[in-house]
Amino acid sequence: MTRERLYLFDTTLRDGQQTQGVQFSTAEKRQIATALDALGVDYIEGGWPGANPTDSEFFAHAPQTRATMTAFGMTKRVGRSAENDDVLAAVLDAGTPAVCLVGKTHEFHVTTALGVSLEENRTAIAASFQHVVTKGREALFDAEHFFDGYRANPDYALSCLRAAYEAGARWIVLCDTNGGTLPLEVGRVVAEVIAAGIPGDRLGIHCHDDTGNAVANSLAAVEAGARQIQGTLNGLGERCGNANLVTLIPTLLLKEPFASQLETGVSAQALAGLVRLSRSLDDILNRVPQRAAPYVGASAFAHKAGLHASAILKNPNTYEHIAPEVVGNERVIPMSNQAGQSNLRARLASAGIEVAAGDARLGRILEIVKEREDQGYAYDGAQASFELVARKELGLLPSFFEVKRYRVTVERRKNKYDQMVSLSEAVVVVKIGAQKMLSVSESMDETGTDRGPVNALSKALAKDLGPYQAVIDDLRLVDFKVRITQGGTEAVTRVIIDSEDNQGRRWSTVGVSANIVDASFEALLDAINWKLIRDIGVPV
Amino acid sequence: MTRERLYLFDTTLRDGQQTQGVQFSTAEKRQIATALDALGVDYIEGGWPGANPTDSEFFAHAPQTRATMTAFGMTKRVGRSAENDDVLAAVLDAGTPAVCLVGKTHEFHVTTALGVSLEENRTAIAASFQHVVTKGREALFDAEHFFDGYRANPDYALSCLRAAYEAGARWIVLCDTNGGTLPLEVGRVVAEVIAAGIPGDRLGIHCHDDTGNAVANSLAAVEAGARQIQGTLNGLGERCGNANLVTLIPTLLLKEPFASQLETGVSAQALAGLVRLSRSLDDILNRVPQRAAPYVGASAFAHKAGLHASAILKNPNTYEHIAPEVVGNERVIPMSNQAGQSNLRARLASAGIEVAAGDARLGRILEIVKEREDQGYAYDGAQASFELVARKELGLLPSFFEVKRYRVTVERRKNKYDQMVSLSEAVVVVKIGAQKMLSVSESMDETGTDRGPVNALSKALAKDLGPYQAVIDDLRLVDFKVRITQGGTEAVTRVIIDSEDNQGRRWSTVGVSANIVDASFEALLDAINWKLIRDIGVPV
Repeated sequence: MTRERLYLFDTTLRDGQQTQGVQFSTAEKRQIATALDALGVDYIEGGWPGANPTDSEFFAHAPQTRATMTAFGMTKRVGRSAENDDVLAAVLDAGTPAVCLVGKTHEFHVTTALGVSLEENRTAIAASFQHVVTKGREALFDAEHFFDGYRANPDYALSCLRAAYEAGARWIVLCDTNGGTLPLEVGRVVAEVIAAGIPGDRLGIHCHDDTGNAVANSLAAVEAGARQIQGTLNGLGERCGNANLVTLIPTLLLKEPFASQLETGVSAQALAGLVRLSRSLDDILNRVPQRAAPYVGASAFAHKAGLHASAILKNPNTYEHIAPEVVGNERVIPMSNQAGQSNLRARLASAGIEVAAGDARLGRILEIVKEREDQGYAYDGAQASFELVARKELGLLPSFFEVKRYRVTVERRKNKYDQMVSLSEAVVVVKIGAQKMLSVSESMDETGTDRGPVNALSKALAKDLGPYQAVIDDLRLVDFKVRITQGGTEAVTRVIIDSEDNQGRRWSTVGVSANIVDASFEALLDAINWKLIRDIGVPV
Repeated sequence: MTRERLYLFDTTLRDGQQTQGVQFSTAEKRQIATALDALGVDYIEGGWPGANPTDSEFFAHAPQTRATMTAFGMTKRVGRSAENDDVLAAVLDAGTPAVCLVGKTHEFHVTTALGVSLEENRTAIAASFQHVVTKGREALFDAEHFFDGYRANPDYALSCLRAAYEAGARWIVLCDTNGGTLPLEVGRVVAEVIAAGIPGDRLGIHCHDDTGNAVANSLAAVEAGARQIQGTLNGLGERCGNANLVTLIPTLLLKEPFASQLETGVSAQALAGLVRLSRSLDDILNRVPQRAAPYVGASAFAHKAGLHASAILKNPNTYEHIAPEVVGNERVIPMSNQAGQSNLRARLASAGIEVAAGDARLGRILEIVKEREDQGYAYDGAQASFELVARKELGLLPSFFEVKRYRVTVERRKNKYDQMVSLSEAVVVVKIGAQKMLSVSESMDETGTDRGPVNALSKALAKDLGPYQAVIDDLRLVDFKVRITQGGTEAVTRVIIDSEDNQGRRWSTVGVSANIVDASFEALLDAINWKLIRDIGVPV
């Protein structure tokens, strides 16, 4: 059976830019466009030329893509011809092979927001698309507020779609602009639009996540016959975001009825790069990746419940709806006080440590983990520290160096300019073999800003680790999470540190103490020791 | 028309605890249960007694709730009677009015994970529910992997449901355990189960978000006739999480066809507290609230696109699917501080400060708050610090004392018994009027435990505030939250301190610095100043 073609239209660079706090540079737009093209989407909407300097600049220097580059704009204004509308002219001037114009289909918006007659609006839609088609461009009509408009006045909303369709628009895209429509209604309305004469292979769907249904609404539209989905990477977009293509793509490729009935431009190989693509967008935007994101989240295949973890070891199908590697993700069996011995063995094996089933030390490790979790440690978010705990019990923990003592001073006082300034200073004494090393560092950075006691301590510790110095030179702390596990200043503090190195490794360690500096120091030591084990194995 | 009752079953405390990185304390479980009860859910699943010490302790001291407290467990094991199954006995021993047991309905799991015959499993289900019902408890059957099982062998899966139903289970809950089922299939299967003889008002739905459809799947099941939804607050849960009740509740109460056909235990008043409830759970877990969360996210009603923002000012319906205040949220329109100012006046009035509408200082306060929020301050959770910022601008901030300088030392070294110990020592110099006071304190508590630098600093500061000493003697720090707002040890640290006094007041203050000790100190100073204003008004 030949599969029908389903088209993917990405609007990360346009609607995704409406996300609060997101502002792409031109270079970032180019980078994302290239990544989208490698993924295999069919259309890349690059922005609104003329409305935004970055967007105009992007189109002026857009990368060559297999995907159809698309400029966004709006239908011509009433009271001037399409040829004489400068806003529309700027969109066409970007020279993209495709042009997507948003227009009104909801009578309330036509009269309230535009303040024109229903007939004037419909005529403007028709004229706009005639103009775009005459210019030889592929035309798309984003029918704004279509579902709300159809609910209010189906005949008028449909007549607007027909105006664009008959004027030669390749795609009529039904937009749930306010995001309030639910899946059942989306499916029903799409079927009615098809019955009213717009073929499904000319229909697209554009959803927002205001009720948490953007993905489900998109799927409902496709089930009803629509053949284009508009969405964004990681669900970026105005308010609660657009339909998340990163979630939709694996469902379309792997799940029935879609997998056997439809075909997209995304290959199995590109699908296997999905986790990397999703994380790289978060990197560009300096956002923390969502752990629980479907398919691509770090927790998406994490099995914490003891019963689940033991069944997974027998057969991953028991608690996994797909194999994680298909989307480039991986299975995680975190240590926690709910886990059993089989779980523990699997976890050790993934760290390269084989322990026979029934080894009495397994029980002892579980007990230690439990004891320490009762003290406030959390190992399911700090696998590297867990590994060190296990290694110690198994006699596999090398002793690279010993911290004899440290002292950190935090001071706040007036400087010579009579300004209040703070400064921290740390002294660390480390013994490596027979050699004792004393290092001192302060918390001031290049810009003269105090970076605090943990920073001073970290710099002093990393200043001179003798023969191990080269190994830790590329260690970077990328995240630092502090949690107080009891109330008051007398609380116990848990610090989790995420580190990475130039080999692209990323690992997490934990420290616990009533003293926040000491808790941080413990996590820092674990991070260094874990890397030394990875890179050196046994002490020099 | 009378509306049918739809029941909400919350499993935040059980399935929600399967979230990677989440480990509730007993006190936190009590706090969440009380909040759930105030929200109006019908069932609170508190945990698995016997499987986890925290869960057992929670049930031993569970708060009194209107909602039906429910203990979770599993159907009895094959090879022993229900009466003699110690795991089941521990569940019943928790003494809850309702008991929810998970059991297998998928032949693959029966033979692979359990390793028993299909008949043995079905008999175990029947016997388990007979036992629970005989004990006078309301019984719920979590039919694990039901949708996968039904796909593989519908007759067997249905026969397992019937075994529980005929043994007296009040609810048969269809679980999409692996989260891979899509809405259309969920709707179809629920309809088929009802047609096969299990009435909809005895059917529940339990979904996971592995394809981003947990909410849509739950809605599809309800549309097909199921009358109980299981979910969690903020969608916590194993892997990608469970169906998010915080998203589902507004949809069920506000959207058709649900709003006019169904009734839940959640009142309009409770709905208006939804944002606060959602954020308070994030606070407890020290998670950053998701800005884009449907209904409750800080961006859920943020209108960034210029065209949207100007239309919103004409009529909010143009780009909002519901009014934000219905769920306790608020509209965010960049560059429109008209709404901001009336908002601000209300906030000041609640602190006893009256400022006339149109006062130019209002605009200046909004600017300062915005600037400081850009630096990392968060005033939503620190009303007392906000009040101090406003007072300063309004000339209403008394100067009680001045901190001239402080110094804190954190030391870790061997003691005379050759043990590594840490100790902090703080010196604070304060000027009150013309008098200078130098206080010193260390971090050791009565038990000889190091309580860290912030503790030492707080004790030194509170040691001698001269004429103000009596006022701050009853000041207690009850919570201390630390969040890093950028990555790495060079991050900016935000500290929020909750304080209380003997008059039962509770207030929150915030400090921000790259130096965690200094951020804590700032929040501490605000806490003291706020109390001095309350108790003294003007300096002595």
